[in-house]
Amino acid sequence: MATHKDVKVVGRFAYDGLDRVIHEKARLGIVSSLATHPSGLVFNDLKELCALTDGNLSRHLHLLSESGLVQIWKGYKDNRPQTLVQLTDEGRRRFLEYVAVLENVVTDALEASKQPKAAKVAPGWTPA
Amino acid sequence: MATHKDVKVVGRFAYDGLDRVIHEKARLGIVSSLATHPSGLVFNDLKELCALTDGNLSRHLHLLSESGLVQIWKGYKDNRPQTLVQLTDEGRRRFLEYVAVLENVVTDALEASKQPKAAKVAPGWTPA
Repeated sequence: MATHKDVKVVGRFAYDGLDRVIHEKARLGIVSSLATHPSGLVFNDLKELCALTDGNLSRHLHLLSESGLVQIWKGYKDNRPQTLVQLTDEGRRRFLEYVAVLENVVTDALEASKQPKAAKVAPGWTPA
Repeated sequence: MATHKDVKVVGRFAYDGLDRVIHEKARLGIVSSLATHPSGLVFNDLKELCALTDGNLSRHLHLLSESGLVQIWKGYKDNRPQTLVQLTDEGRRRFLEYVAVLENVVTDALEASKQPKAAKVAPGWTPA
C-alpha cells in the first residue's frame, strides 16, 4: 500500500510520549481537573468532577501519589477532617508534556479526517 | 476551594466520550495510522508504524475487529500471503468522535497551563 508519498516511518504512530500513568481515562480526568485548580481540590469535589466512586478515586490517587504526580494533604475544613489533593510541580510538567503528544494525535486525526472513507479493497482479498 | 468563579460541575472531567477501546495507547496508534491510510495497511507496515510486536498487534487487532472498528482481510501481495487491515466506516466515525473529546482535553490543558504553579497549601494541612 506504500507509495512514494506515504513513507513508513518506524514508530510514527507509537505515541511514545503518552505517559501511561496519565493516559488512563480516570487518571487523565483527575490530573486535568487538578491542573486547572492549582490550589488543590478536596476529595469530594474531585470525586464529583471526575464522576468516580470513593474506592476508584482512592486507588488512582494512591498510584498518582506513588508516581510523584500529586501530593495528598490531611487537614480540616468546616471542622471536618478532609483530604486535599494537589498536583505537584513534576505532575504539572509531565501533564503538559503528555498534552503536547495529545496535540499530535489530534493533528494526525485532522489530517485523517480529510481522507476519503474506506476504499474498496482490491480483488483477491477475502475477509479473515 | 470552590469560589463563585469555580463552580463544580458533576462529571466535568469524567471525559465520558473517551471510548476505552480506542483510548488504550497501542490501539490509539493503530486506529490513528489506519485512519490516515484509508486503503488499509498490511500487517508488517502497521507493526512498524506502531512499533508493536507481532503478538501485541495481533491481540489488539482481534479486539478492534470484535468491536467492529477494523476489517481484516487475507490475501496475497508480491506472491506472499498477507494480512490487510482497514478501518471500517464505523471505526472511522468512532475515531473522529473520540478525537473531538481529546480536543476538549487539550483545551482544558491549555486553560490549565495559564494557571500559576501549585500554590502553597494553607497552614493546618499536613502531608498524608
